[in-house]
Amino acid sequence: MQVTTSVFLRKGAQHRVESGHPWVYQSELDYIDGEFEPGDIVDVYNFRQKFIGRGYINPRSQIIVRLLSREQEPIDREFFKKRIQTAWKYRQTFISEPEYCRLVYGEADFLPALIVDKFGPYMVIQTLALGIDVHKATIVSVLEELFQPEGIYERNDVPVRRLEGLPEVKGYLKGDFPTEIKVLENGIPFYADIKEGQKTGFFYDQRENRMFLKPFIRGAEVLDCFCHTGSFAVHAALYGAKKITSIDISAEAIELARKNAELNGVAAVCDFQVANAFDALRSMAEEQRQFDVVILDPPAFTKSRHALEGAARGYKEINLRGLKMVRPGGFLVTCSCSFHMGRDLFQAIVADAARDARRVIRQVEYRTQAKDHPILPSAAETEYLKFLVVQVF
Amino acid sequence: MQVTTSVFLRKGAQHRVESGHPWVYQSELDYIDGEFEPGDIVDVYNFRQKFIGRGYINPRSQIIVRLLSREQEPIDREFFKKRIQTAWKYRQTFISEPEYCRLVYGEADFLPALIVDKFGPYMVIQTLALGIDVHKATIVSVLEELFQPEGIYERNDVPVRRLEGLPEVKGYLKGDFPTEIKVLENGIPFYADIKEGQKTGFFYDQRENRMFLKPFIRGAEVLDCFCHTGSFAVHAALYGAKKITSIDISAEAIELARKNAELNGVAAVCDFQVANAFDALRSMAEEQRQFDVVILDPPAFTKSRHALEGAARGYKEINLRGLKMVRPGGFLVTCSCSFHMGRDLFQAIVADAARDARRVIRQVEYRTQAKDHPILPSAAETEYLKFLVVQVF
Repeated sequence: MQVTTSVFLRKGAQHRVESGHPWVYQSELDYIDGEFEPGDIVDVYNFRQKFIGRGYINPRSQIIVRLLSREQEPIDREFFKKRIQTAWKYRQTFISEPEYCRLVYGEADFLPALIVDKFGPYMVIQTLALGIDVHKATIVSVLEELFQPEGIYERNDVPVRRLEGLPEVKGYLKGDFPTEIKVLENGIPFYADIKEGQKTGFFYDQRENRMFLKPFIRGAEVLDCFCHTGSFAVHAALYGAKKITSIDISAEAIELARKNAELNGVAAVCDFQVANAFDALRSMAEEQRQFDVVILDPPAFTKSRHALEGAARGYKEINLRGLKMVRPGGFLVTCSCSFHMGRDLFQAIVADAARDARRVIRQVEYRTQAKDHPILPSAAETEYLKFLVVQVF
Repeated sequence: MQVTTSVFLRKGAQHRVESGHPWVYQSELDYIDGEFEPGDIVDVYNFRQKFIGRGYINPRSQIIVRLLSREQEPIDREFFKKRIQTAWKYRQTFISEPEYCRLVYGEADFLPALIVDKFGPYMVIQTLALGIDVHKATIVSVLEELFQPEGIYERNDVPVRRLEGLPEVKGYLKGDFPTEIKVLENGIPFYADIKEGQKTGFFYDQRENRMFLKPFIRGAEVLDCFCHTGSFAVHAALYGAKKITSIDISAEAIELARKNAELNGVAAVCDFQVANAFDALRSMAEEQRQFDVVILDPPAFTKSRHALEGAARGYKEINLRGLKMVRPGGFLVTCSCSFHMGRDLFQAIVADAARDARRVIRQVEYRTQAKDHPILPSAAETEYLKFLVVQVF
């Protein structure tokens, strides 16, 4: 298929895209030469009529074009196969258990708006923009050819699809299998609910980070706030923690967390409680509870830049309370998965909280998301996770 | 010994010190109450006469007081023993081979201006300020009690001591042993020259970082610029690299690097060359040489904020040339050990270089210095190393 439509950028608007960012905004357009349907493949040029890249167009979205390639190559089945093979090779290189991973991480795998998670014999996919959604059948056929999965499930029940004029849907794309499956993370089995769980049912973005608990968790009393389905708790227990108190506001998450602790034979040292972590932190602080390790892994407090101030207060509060409950010489493990809460601001908030708590902290480790969620330095949006371990004196 | 001298800070000058930073500058003083000799222990108070901490004073230095403690505890042999025991426990917790480590990293171990490296049965120490130098005999006696080293060597031949009114000296403090010793890094033996080598003879600050080569180095042709005594090269060779071309301007460093490759039985795949890395990068770029992996680990291009612009040009140039020589899908490993070259600036320079080289890069790993060089978030000076791995398309 010949690409016949050309998108020309305004003078000055080319820098970000030429630096490797895959998005073209409406506001950056000069003019479009040729006809197109939403979802079609178009070529993008700078104001000097120099080719920048090839991608898909959707005039309904503020991001009117997302680039798939920097070359004038056909966007066909072979293209998707090559991209997915490259992504798979990367996971085989860097992930110790590549059968269980985020196989395709959208923009960072040069397949904007496509998410593919591989949970052993099952796969879960999300096509979050029209221009990738139109290739869904092709992508599924490539996944079948390369991986022969027993089942593929679609988790397109996400509001962001509405911005693209797409419906919210979920269901089987291949096979018909029980949707509560077992997955592996660092060799540890967990239950995941790919139909009802958050997003695709399991998050691998803290995989390597969880292993960083190992050196200091043996024999520790641990407080684990925002525990979700219990991955930090089970890791801590298997690494030898004495007792883990885990809190999450979701009864469904806690139920699954309990099953995960049982699955791993560590239920005896895990105490899971359904509670608002803010309230729990406050009341435990009043009771002057002390722990050797406090883990804070909250959900995103803000999904927009506007709500950043409130989010910063939230992070400050939980870190302040968490720090106060760490025994001298113990550790605080604190995370943020809000992209808008940048690395510097997050670290400053933790430092601020330490000053207010009159505790001296020492950084042991700072990391970002796991290797199967790679980062494009040219697209800041692809880096979102902050994982910080400090020793508290 | 009673502390009888009190240092009062000006109003507004207390924030940094109260936040955990151990330094008090001359400019932050209000007045000093009591007599003192340079090197004496004094108490520091804020303008509300609230005790902040206890440290040593030297009016010759711009940093007039460095805090040793946040408590009104005696600064005696027991104090130094407790601090060193805490530092040792930390290394035993986090370092896989604690017998070979930076045992005390100054400010970050709450012993400002004291460096102690442990190389198996030998130790090397630096006392870089008068107020710690006066306790050298005590510290040596504690090291003897706790570790029974075969030898202790002093590497106080560093110009920074002059700012403290101290002479530049080096020599044996205990024992008399050959100063070319064998050390371990990630279980790999290396020769180190603790008398003539840079600083204390061996740098552990890239220890964990070197292991991050492992997933992608097998079978690779590697260019290793600023190779110093060959640690990255030997790691790469042992992890299965096909051929490593290593460059350093120091003939002494290259000689030791060759011996290190022989010691590890990997001399056949290592090619060490004495050359200016800038020139070598330029000429290899002209010859259109290509590598699977390029490693850039330059010495600090700047030790001051003033020279930052020139340093930034230097980093840009080597990264630009390095990136151009990476085969598509290969990797660039790029470092900076200049504190003044901040993390954001360094990452921006690499991103800039990628744009100029017309290459798309993807971040695989970002790390800072090894665990035995911990970081005080309140003292930015303690974080200096940047280690970045990107995949290059």
